[in-house]
Amino acid sequence: MAEVSILYNKERAVKLMNEAGVEGVIATTPENVQYITGIPLRTTSWNMQIYALLPKDESKKMAIIIPTNRLSVLSQKGIPDADVYVHGTFYLLGEPTDDITEDMEILVGLLKDRHVYNDALEALLAALSDKGYSNEALAIDEMRMSPTVMEGLKKQYAGKISYGYRLIRQIRLVKTQPEIERLRKVARLNEEGELLMIGMIKEGASEAELAQAYREFATRNNSITGMIAVGGGPRSSLPLIEEYLYSFKKGDLVRFDLCLQHNGYWADTGRTAVLGEPNAWQSKSFDAIYKGWEHALSMVKPGAVACDIFNSTMDVVLHSGIDVFKRQHVGHAIGLEIYDDIVIGPTDHSVIEENMVLNIEVPYYLLGSGGFQIEDTVVVTKDGWEFLTGAERKLFVC
Amino acid sequence: MAEVSILYNKERAVKLMNEAGVEGVIATTPENVQYITGIPLRTTSWNMQIYALLPKDESKKMAIIIPTNRLSVLSQKGIPDADVYVHGTFYLLGEPTDDITEDMEILVGLLKDRHVYNDALEALLAALSDKGYSNEALAIDEMRMSPTVMEGLKKQYAGKISYGYRLIRQIRLVKTQPEIERLRKVARLNEEGELLMIGMIKEGASEAELAQAYREFATRNNSITGMIAVGGGPRSSLPLIEEYLYSFKKGDLVRFDLCLQHNGYWADTGRTAVLGEPNAWQSKSFDAIYKGWEHALSMVKPGAVACDIFNSTMDVVLHSGIDVFKRQHVGHAIGLEIYDDIVIGPTDHSVIEENMVLNIEVPYYLLGSGGFQIEDTVVVTKDGWEFLTGAERKLFVC
Repeated sequence: MAEVSILYNKERAVKLMNEAGVEGVIATTPENVQYITGIPLRTTSWNMQIYALLPKDESKKMAIIIPTNRLSVLSQKGIPDADVYVHGTFYLLGEPTDDITEDMEILVGLLKDRHVYNDALEALLAALSDKGYSNEALAIDEMRMSPTVMEGLKKQYAGKISYGYRLIRQIRLVKTQPEIERLRKVARLNEEGELLMIGMIKEGASEAELAQAYREFATRNNSITGMIAVGGGPRSSLPLIEEYLYSFKKGDLVRFDLCLQHNGYWADTGRTAVLGEPNAWQSKSFDAIYKGWEHALSMVKPGAVACDIFNSTMDVVLHSGIDVFKRQHVGHAIGLEIYDDIVIGPTDHSVIEENMVLNIEVPYYLLGSGGFQIEDTVVVTKDGWEFLTGAERKLFVC
Repeated sequence: MAEVSILYNKERAVKLMNEAGVEGVIATTPENVQYITGIPLRTTSWNMQIYALLPKDESKKMAIIIPTNRLSVLSQKGIPDADVYVHGTFYLLGEPTDDITEDMEILVGLLKDRHVYNDALEALLAALSDKGYSNEALAIDEMRMSPTVMEGLKKQYAGKISYGYRLIRQIRLVKTQPEIERLRKVARLNEEGELLMIGMIKEGASEAELAQAYREFATRNNSITGMIAVGGGPRSSLPLIEEYLYSFKKGDLVRFDLCLQHNGYWADTGRTAVLGEPNAWQSKSFDAIYKGWEHALSMVKPGAVACDIFNSTMDVVLHSGIDVFKRQHVGHAIGLEIYDDIVIGPTDHSVIEENMVLNIEVPYYLLGSGGFQIEDTVVVTKDGWEFLTGAERKLFVC
C-alpha cells in the first residue's frame, strides 16, 4: 500500500488553534480534508458529507467521517493514522478469498465489526464524544458542511462553534516539505505543458489546438486542468479564456496563464510569446512588467507585508514605461487551492513567512491591443525565496 | 457567439415554486447555477461566490451574481437572457481596437458603465431589490453560499428564506429536451470509452492501462472523468476503485463502472467482461443480475414508485440463482450531478414521471470471488422508457 503523506503543518496547526482559542478543527471542503488526512476523497453529490476532525491535543488521533462506501477508497489510498466513522448503508458480501490484493485485506479489516451511523451528524457527534469533547470550543470549516448538519451540531453539541475555513487556510499558508515537493513537481509539469504550447505557435495555428495539446499533456501526466488561458492577438488581452476562437498571425502576442493540478496541488504559471520579432510597444511593455515582476520578487522575504509588495511594485511598473497600469493584485499564495489565503493586493496586510509558497505575477491587459503575462511560483526561504518554476523568463519569440 | 441553451424546465420550476410557496430560487452550486443560466462558471477558491436568481414571475429576467472578472467568461460562453450583477475589483484597461473578436465586443458592452458591488451579498441584495423583492419568500440553494453571506442575507432581507438545494434538484428531475440530448450524448461517449477498454482486455493487461486509455479517450472528447472503476479478478468485487493494482489473468472477471461528464452532464454506465469462457458460477451470477436489471426496467414508467421498483427487483434477483443478495439501491436519477434526487432504494417514495432520466443498475459484489455490473441509462417516456445507452447488454467474453 501507498504510504500516506502527512501534509499538514502540525506545529502551525497547534499554534493557530491556540490563538483562536479552539480545541480542534473540522475540515469539510475536499482541499481541507485532503490537507488533514493526506488523501483525496471524491463525492457524487453535494448531499454527500465527508469530514476530518483534527484535535489540538496531539495525543489524540484525528477522526475521518465518511460514507460507508468510501472505506474502499481509504483502503486503496492508504489509511492515515486516524479513527474512522462511517455513515449510511452499504453492502459488500462474501468472505474474502486467498488471492485478494493488499488494499482489499485492509478493507476487510475496516469493515469488520464497524458501527454504521445513520448519517453524517450522528457519526460526527460520536467522533466528538469518543475524542472526549463535550463543551470545548471547535472551529468548523463552514464551506462544505450541509447547513442542516451545522444546525444539528449547534443544537446538540454544548461547546462553542466558530467558522474554521479561514483558520485551516491560515494553517495551510506555511507549507510542509511534502507540500513544497508536490508544488515543485506540479509547477515544473505545468511549465513543460506551457513550453509544449509555445513550441506549437506558428502562423495559422490556433488557440484551440494549443489548449487541446495542453489538456492531453495533463492527462498523460495524471493531472487535472483548471483555467487554460491561451489568447492570441487581440485576445491576448483577455484575462480569463475558456473558449478558443483565434488563429495566430505574424506579429501576434500570445499570452498564457495556465492552472494545473497534480496530486491535489496546483500550479498557476504564465508566459508571453510573440509570433515574429516584437515591435517597439511589445518590447517596451514586456520590459516594464518584467521590471515590476523582478521588483516584487526582490521584496519577498519573511517579514514583508503583502500590500507593501503590491504598492511598491505598482510604482515600479508605472515608472518603467507604461503610463496607465492598474491591478487588483500582483500575486497570491497557492497550494491545495489556486488562491490560498494571501492576495498580494492593496488591502492584504498578511506578513510573509518562511515556507509560504507564493505566485508572483504582473499581467498587463490592454483591451484589444494585447496582453502580457509573467507569473512564477516561489517558496519563501529564511532570508528570501527560491523558484519552484524554471522556464526562461523572457518574451518568447516564435 | 455560441447560443446559450436553455436547460431548465420553466413549467416545472413555476409549479414547484408554487407548491413550496416561494417567489424565487437562488442557485449557488455550480450544477444548479449551470442549470439556471445554461453556462458553466468556474471558481478558484471556496470564497468565490457565484449565484443565479430565478424569479417565479416569468416576466422578470433571471439575475446572475458573479465576480467582475467572470464577465469575460460570460461573454465567451454566451450571455443568457439575464441581468448581471458583478462584485469585486477587476481592471481591464484600454479602448477596444477594430480587430477584436465578437466575444470581446460583448465583454466591452458588459463592462461599460456597470456598477461594481463590494461583495457578493451587496450584489445579491441589489439584484433582489431591482427585481422588486422586498418581503417575499425565497428558496436559497444552501450548499454553496458562504454561511456569512447567508447570515447577512437573513439579517438584511425582510422576506422568509428557506433552503432550496433540494427544491432545485426536484425541478431538475424532469429533464428538458436539450438536457436529454446532452445526457444521450455523454452516455454514448461513455460507452465508447468502455468498449475501448473491453477491447484491451487480455492476459497481462492491467487495470492501470485500461484506466489511462479511458482518461485519454475522455480528454480527446472534451470530457471530464469521475470515478473510473475497472477491477479485475478479485478486485472486480470492489465497488469503488481509485487505484489500479491488478493485471488480468485467464478466467478473471473485469467489472466496469464509469462516470464521465461532457458539457456539464454525467454518464454513469457499467458492464462486466470475462477473460476466457465464463465458468458456471460466473454465468449463473450474471444471469441472475441480468434478470433483476431486466425486471427493474420493466417497472419503469410514469406513476411507478422508486421503492416498489427496488423491492420487487430484489425479490427477482433472489429467485434467480443468487442466495445472498443485498443492495442499498438499484439505480438513481442522473443529470448535472451523478446522483440526482431519486435513489431507487427501500426508503425513496419518489413517483417516476415522463422525461426523468434514470440509471438502472444491479451490481453484485462478492468479496474476492468477483463482481458483476450492468448499468444503463433510460429516459422515461409517456408509457415506459427508452435507452440512452446502446452497448450490448451481455457478459462480454474476451
